Amino acid sequence: MNVKTITSPSAMTRFVKKARAKGKTVGFVPTMGYLHDGHMALVRNAKRENDIVVMSIFVNPAQFGPKEDYAKYPRDFKKDSRLAKKEGVDVIFYPAVKSMYLPNHSTYVTVEKLTTNLCGRSRPGHFKGVATVVTKLFNIVPADTSYFGQKDAQQAFIISRMARDLNIPMKIKVVPTVREEDGLAMSSRNVYLDGNERREAAALFKSLSLAKKLISEGERNSKKIIRAIKDFTTKNSSAKIDYVSIIDTDELKDIKTLKGRILIAIAAYFGKTRLIDNMILEV
Amino acid sequence: MNVKTITSPSAMTRFVKKARAKGKTVGFVPTMGYLHDGHMALVRNAKRENDIVVMSIFVNPAQFGPKEDYAKYPRDFKKDSRLAKKEGVDVIFYPAVKSMYLPNHSTYVTVEKLTTNLCGRSRPGHFKGVATVVTKLFNIVPADTSYFGQKDAQQAFIISRMARDLNIPMKIKVVPTVREEDGLAMSSRNVYLDGNERREAAALFKSLSLAKKLISEGERNSKKIIRAIKDFTTKNSSAKIDYVSIIDTDELKDIKTLKGRILIAIAAYFGKTRLIDNMILEV
Repeated sequence: MNVKTITSPSAMTRFVKKARAKGKTVGFVPTMGYLHDGHMALVRNAKRENDIVVMSIFVNPAQFGPKEDYAKYPRDFKKDSRLAKKEGVDVIFYPAVKSMYLPNHSTYVTVEKLTTNLCGRSRPGHFKGVATVVTKLFNIVPADTSYFGQKDAQQAFIISRMARDLNIPMKIKVVPTVREEDGLAMSSRNVYLDGNERREAAALFKSLSLAKKLISEGERNSKKIIRAIKDFTTKNSSAKIDYVSIIDTDELKDIKTLKGRILIAIAAYFGKTRLIDNMILEV
Repeated sequence: MNVKTITSPSAMTRFVKKARAKGKTVGFVPTMGYLHDGHMALVRNAKRENDIVVMSIFVNPAQFGPKEDYAKYPRDFKKDSRLAKKEGVDVIFYPAVKSMYLPNHSTYVTVEKLTTNLCGRSRPGHFKGVATVVTKLFNIVPADTSYFGQKDAQQAFIISRMARDLNIPMKIKVVPTVREEDGLAMSSRNVYLDGNERREAAALFKSLSLAKKLISEGERNSKKIIRAIKDFTTKNSSAKIDYVSIIDTDELKDIKTLKGRILIAIAAYFGKTRLIDNMILEV
C-alpha cells in the first residue's frame, strides 16, 4: 500500500480543512523529494506533534537559476512514497508544475535584506522562488505547523521572517541537521558526488567543527575564523569555496567580532556539485 | 452603540476563525477609511452574501510614495464607525501601523506584468504596497469572500491575479463604481477638491462616456479614442492628464485596435489632486 497521494491543489486544501474541522492537528513537511534521513527527521518531528502529517514533493522550477540543476535534480517518486509510508506520512501532495504555475503567473514573494547575503548572493532569484512557492504551499496546505531543516539555514530564517511579516497562520519549526557518519550534512545533491568528492565533502563539517573549537578557545575575530575554515577546507579537499560567512542571526549581516547568537555558513563546490553547511553558536 | 472594533491582528483572526467554525460565512471589505457610498456598496454586497461582515480601516503607508499624500490622507474614524454601523458592518479591524509592520519588516508581494502600465507607471511601488498589505489582511481576516471596487480597476485585476497565483483561499468580488449625480466616481480623495475643481472633475466620466459613444458608433482605433478623451477633458476642465489608456483586461497591455473585453482608464490632476476613473466595455 502506498501513501495517499493528492495532485490537485484544491483537493489538497479540502483534505486539510476537513481534518482540522474535525479537531485534528496537521503537520506539514515541504520537500523537493529524493528523500533522505534529514527529511525523515522533519517527518518524525511532525508525527510527534500532530495527528496528521502531510508531505509535499515538488521540485520548484522558480527557485532554480537558468544555469542551475533543475532539469537534472534527482527525482524518484516511487522510492519517496515508500520511505514516506515507512515513516508514517499520511498524505503526499505531489502537484504538476502546470497546476502550481498557471498561465501568466505574475506574483512573487520577496524577502528583502535577509536574501542579499550568503546563498542569496550566489544564487540570485533563488529565495524569491522559495518564498513564492512556500507561500503557495502554505495556502494549499493550511496546516498548524510546518517543518524545515537547519541545513538550509538561510531558507529557515527567510521563511520564518516571511511568515511573521505576511501574518501567515502557521508555526514554523526548524529541525537540526542530520549528518552522515563522517559529518557530511544529508542532502539530495550528495548523490551527484563521485567517490572521491564524497570523501572530501566531509571537510565542510570538519571545518565548521574546527571553527567551533577555535571559538571555544576564545577566538572572536571573524576574519581569522573564516581564514581558518577556508584553509582547512582547501588543504583537506579540492573544493572550490563559494563563500564562508559569519553573520548575526537577526539580519544575517556579516559581523566582525563574534557576540551573541551567530551563524557560521559555508558553501563550496565539489566538482560541479555545490554543497552548503552551517552551525549556529551562542558566543 | 459603535461597531465592535478590533485592533490586534491575532484577535481579529481568532474572531473570524470562530465565526467560520460555527458555520457562518464571512465577507471582508478592506478600506483605507474616510468612507463614502462606494465603500457602502461593497458592504451591501458583503451583507447580502454573508452572515458576518468585517471591514478593515487601515491607511497603508507602504502603498504611498515618498511625495504622495500619506500624511494628509483624510481620516475620520468616528464618522467611519457610525457609517459602518448604519450599514450593518459587524466588526471593524482597525490596526495601528506598528502592529501591521513589525521591526525589520522585510517581506513584499509583487505582481509583475500587470503593474507596469497605468497607475503602476505613475506610482512606482504603489501596487507592491497594495499587494503586500492585502496579502497580510487576507491572512488576518480569513473570510470567504472579499469585496473591491471597480473604480480602482488595476488594483482589482492585480488582487484577483495575486489571489489566484498564491492560492489564497478567498473569493474576490469586484463591485461597480458608485458615482455622484454628475458622474464623478466616489473617492475619499474628492474631499481635496475645491468648488471649481469639483465641478470640473465631472469631465473624467463624461470623457469616458464620450468614448463609449464613439465605440458604439463603430470607432475601433485606440489612438483616435484616446485623443478624443484627452481633447474633451482638456477643453472642459483645467485638468492635467496623467494618462489615458485603452488596454486588454487580461495582461493590461495597451491595444491598438479595440476587440473583446477592454478597459479604458484615465488619471488626471485637478489642482494637486490626482483622480482616476475607468470603464470596461465588451467590443
